Amino acid sequence: MALPRATRGLSRCAAAAVFGLALISCSDAPSPAPWALAIHGGAGGLPKDLPAAEVQKIREALEQALASGGALLETGGSSLDAVQAAVRVMEGSGVLNAGRGPVLNHEGHAELDAAIMNGKDRAAGSVAGVRHVANPIDLARLVMDRSRHVLLVGAGAEAFAKEQGIELKPDEYFVTERRRRQLERDRQGEREAGLAAPSSTAGTVGAIALDRHGNLAAATSTGGMSNKHAGRVGDSPIIGAGTFAQNGVCAVSATGHGEYFIRYTAAAEVCARVRLGKLGIDAAARQVIDELKEVGGEGGLIAMDARGRIARVHSSPTMLSGRVSASAPAQVVVETR
Amino acid sequence: MALPRATRGLSRCAAAAVFGLALISCSDAPSPAPWALAIHGGAGGLPKDLPAAEVQKIREALEQALASGGALLETGGSSLDAVQAAVRVMEGSGVLNAGRGPVLNHEGHAELDAAIMNGKDRAAGSVAGVRHVANPIDLARLVMDRSRHVLLVGAGAEAFAKEQGIELKPDEYFVTERRRRQLERDRQGEREAGLAAPSSTAGTVGAIALDRHGNLAAATSTGGMSNKHAGRVGDSPIIGAGTFAQNGVCAVSATGHGEYFIRYTAAAEVCARVRLGKLGIDAAARQVIDELKEVGGEGGLIAMDARGRIARVHSSPTMLSGRVSASAPAQVVVETR
Repeated sequence: MALPRATRGLSRCAAAAVFGLALISCSDAPSPAPWALAIHGGAGGLPKDLPAAEVQKIREALEQALASGGALLETGGSSLDAVQAAVRVMEGSGVLNAGRGPVLNHEGHAELDAAIMNGKDRAAGSVAGVRHVANPIDLARLVMDRSRHVLLVGAGAEAFAKEQGIELKPDEYFVTERRRRQLERDRQGEREAGLAAPSSTAGTVGAIALDRHGNLAAATSTGGMSNKHAGRVGDSPIIGAGTFAQNGVCAVSATGHGEYFIRYTAAAEVCARVRLGKLGIDAAARQVIDELKEVGGEGGLIAMDARGRIARVHSSPTMLSGRVSASAPAQVVVETR
Repeated sequence: MALPRATRGLSRCAAAAVFGLALISCSDAPSPAPWALAIHGGAGGLPKDLPAAEVQKIREALEQALASGGALLETGGSSLDAVQAAVRVMEGSGVLNAGRGPVLNHEGHAELDAAIMNGKDRAAGSVAGVRHVANPIDLARLVMDRSRHVLLVGAGAEAFAKEQGIELKPDEYFVTERRRRQLERDRQGEREAGLAAPSSTAGTVGAIALDRHGNLAAATSTGGMSNKHAGRVGDSPIIGAGTFAQNGVCAVSATGHGEYFIRYTAAAEVCARVRLGKLGIDAAARQVIDELKEVGGEGGLIAMDARGRIARVHSSPTMLSGRVSASAPAQVVVETR
């Protein structure tokens, strides 16, 4: 009901008094529901010698991701749409390890993984080992919305992309000179060490959000590990490992040495410690990252509880990240190691 | 130290008395450490019209799986080897939905998934969407033992199989006339219903075990869901969804409508409720299967706690299963629905 002209400009509780609603006290007046968005751009840190212009591009990608997701949340959009939008921006930036310009597998191909999960109904969609999809997070969302499945991999996932009208990109869209050099260094290191040492996994991207309707969501996208075996899948697209969301409990997006995050079901474990272990989001996130570090699994994660409180923890030297909420302006953390 | 000839044939407590170890009472004499093995052959039940000879073959496959894994455990072998051996027998039987004779995807191909996990150190190996590997559980074990990864999918997983010297089988090895007819029925049902209804997922196979050294392990193998989209991966190869093992807590192998088991991280959730929720294995398993059923996810699972106690729960009409332990002879449950 529109308020009569006379009450315009009055406070909400004054207006209530005008209409004789004495039971509504001023302190009960509803304020706009909160929202929050956190993102990460991978654990592991940037190379010290990365040109300043590249660092600036990364900073801008994170800021644009926050702006894109934040605008949706501010206007009442869903956390699901917001995390997808934020990840899509980072995938398209060409300066992180997801979408365009990811690390390359042992054969020199880009193989991409992504997942998205809605905390409201625990719907989820994931793709893994896809080679020609510019925005794997959009494909993951389509798996969730338009298939009866949760996880599609490899050639079958690309076939699904075509069925859904997604234009497949040629290899050249994904492969950059910088990543070719990185692969050559990693292959050289592998030959010299006599065994395959894990390479940097920096640059995975992820987002978690709480919307004004109280719904949590999470999304993660990655090119995985440089010099990985063809077909290797990390934690990002695995629900409960790198990506997880459950309303009333928490949302998580992880980054790091994915094999450990899978074996320790890292994202689900953070939420289990909140839900069953009655820990706060910070303590739960810290414990899990510390325990992973202890067994050799370096990395980090962002987590958000049901009220939008954000935990950001990493055992890696640094983690690219950012946050914005209804009550706090956007801020990003971009550190070289 | 070898006992002197004179004490041979005496009981362990008598021998202790001979050596003056009066503090060891007879009731404290150590008995051989326990072991236990449980297997399943999938939830969902057998068709009522399955010929008696086929039912008998299924029963024999389960009995042979128990015999194979049980023999290893009885002689002090590892639970990891035992679950692999039990699953390998079921994969080779040709009458379950794993290895030889699995359900077919929408295009008529067999696409296989498997995972194995060692509770001792939480090492794990998984493969998904592989087409020409007779025993996916052996390939999963090789991923665990001989790669630096946990999960390999699709063509990359098959390339790894070749690198490891595994002979790839032609399509004809996997595809049976019975599964072709099942696929045709499912495709027909899909056309008539106007949408893709999930088909039976019966016949997934799995095993969990506790060995004499106190180590838990779990393994699962499947052909997935008949008429699935190419590239679709279910819960079986996902650590924490269809397969999970953690020493001192529990081991789980699940079967059913895999998409739900992924979204609810079913296997890890059973163990989280034992570890953090302080539930017994039966209550934890029952709760998780009941909650999945409530949201539409039918299926079942076998779970084992740190002492070898076995829970067997299903919301599907039936679940093929079996068990054997140091103290109880092998028994199998084969019900038609």
